[in-house]
Amino acid sequence: MAGPIRTVERLAWRAGRFTPGERAIAEETAVAFTYNGTSYAVMMATPQDLEDFAVGFTVTEGIVTAPDEIEHLEVLELEAGIELQMRLTEARAGALAARRRHLAGPTGCGLCGIESLTEAMRPLSPLADHVAVSPRDIMRAIGALSDLQVINQQTRAVHGAAFYRPVEDSLVMREDVGRHNALDKLCGALLRDNISRQSGFALVTSRLSIEMIQKAVVVGIPILVAVSAPTALAVKAAEAAGMTLVAVARADGFEVFTHPQRIKEERSLHVVAG
Amino acid sequence: MAGPIRTVERLAWRAGRFTPGERAIAEETAVAFTYNGTSYAVMMATPQDLEDFAVGFTVTEGIVTAPDEIEHLEVLELEAGIELQMRLTEARAGALAARRRHLAGPTGCGLCGIESLTEAMRPLSPLADHVAVSPRDIMRAIGALSDLQVINQQTRAVHGAAFYRPVEDSLVMREDVGRHNALDKLCGALLRDNISRQSGFALVTSRLSIEMIQKAVVVGIPILVAVSAPTALAVKAAEAAGMTLVAVARADGFEVFTHPQRIKEERSLHVVAG
Repeated sequence: MAGPIRTVERLAWRAGRFTPGERAIAEETAVAFTYNGTSYAVMMATPQDLEDFAVGFTVTEGIVTAPDEIEHLEVLELEAGIELQMRLTEARAGALAARRRHLAGPTGCGLCGIESLTEAMRPLSPLADHVAVSPRDIMRAIGALSDLQVINQQTRAVHGAAFYRPVEDSLVMREDVGRHNALDKLCGALLRDNISRQSGFALVTSRLSIEMIQKAVVVGIPILVAVSAPTALAVKAAEAAGMTLVAVARADGFEVFTHPQRIKEERSLHVVAG
Repeated sequence: MAGPIRTVERLAWRAGRFTPGERAIAEETAVAFTYNGTSYAVMMATPQDLEDFAVGFTVTEGIVTAPDEIEHLEVLELEAGIELQMRLTEARAGALAARRRHLAGPTGCGLCGIESLTEAMRPLSPLADHVAVSPRDIMRAIGALSDLQVINQQTRAVHGAAFYRPVEDSLVMREDVGRHNALDKLCGALLRDNISRQSGFALVTSRLSIEMIQKAVVVGIPILVAVSAPTALAVKAAEAAGMTLVAVARADGFEVFTHPQRIKEERSLHVVAG
């Protein structure tokens, strides 16, 4: 499989003249999700951490409610791209087929229907209330972020999504050319490695739009920190879902847009001894 | 209709303490595209320049080949969002219905099928060969960009797409929370105002992925300049389409990834006397 970075030749124009040279750019591959032999979606993505991507997307899109409903997962390299071939449990496959029939009406694919907006505003599942982290934890995670963005350091064209656990001082990072994909990969990594979403908080390097909030809520992330600014709908969705939304998180500080009760001097986290 | 910016309250943590205050954030609205009474797509977008968005998207997605195939356009404000209600010519509406039936098979919505990747690599229409701009033109446009990003100046959460005409020294700018949307709005503005795509070049503040190249090629933009880095597929698509792709365009210079012949000291543009 091709790596996530490719080097191309280009002409640089600097200080009044052209100079030939090379630049590392981000690879981008068509990735198809298939369930029990039927294609569900195709996305352009960074060809890395594809098992995480498969599990994360399948859970955050509500196709399964838990990773163990994916009975089998295979990453296939095809000529035109990559297929993430999954076999779901019989019950889940049946539910997906029913949903598909429902969507095949005259209103088009419907996956992104205007009705879903109202639905998006509903809290999907209650987020843990006891979780709290300190401002110092957040500043420490922000400081550690860029060192782990290994693809972005070279290409300056990929987003990162990470999960920071203050007690272990550890940061899990996933990268992708698509910001939703980066978050899906992170969610998949947390689920596959059985990392409690109540043991820390998630960070994203990209803008925060409503779908990012939805995905994080589905996997039970109670605190989400973004380097960039949120959109108005993202704030509304986080407010409704009971999520603590931190944004404009930079070296000089951060801003809390919703549910600030989870940020206090004394940490309160779910830590598994081990 | 709500404006593109909304002010919310938030807590800022800076210099070791929390301070309450306000921040301007980008509004985001569900925008539905309907053709002859049938819903086609719904996207989250900045509620501004919606007529440009309607015309641009409809052309860059190949639903019509020219704006005059849209017989009627109405922007409707609904409770859950905005509907861009369009009536197409009979021929176009028939072609769209046929395409829809073709897509409604067992492989899902198909709009983003893996087959489209191969298709995307085909040059859609030959781009003008005589067009050329100078390095100074590009540097001047880069310098003028941020002053015209009026929504982004306040919210830091929206992308910009612009068209620069060196002879007039004029920059047309459109902004949106989605980078494809910003480009669609710009394409719509160029089409509606009858601005020749051979009179200058387009600039985008966002990353360049393959869909951005496709959209620009459809409306005949021969030179595309991006502030950020391109992905590998974007470079491949621009190469195949005969487009001049400039990226990493900053205050200190820029880099040319494909077809550098359109950047030379002597300009060659299509200028309409007026």
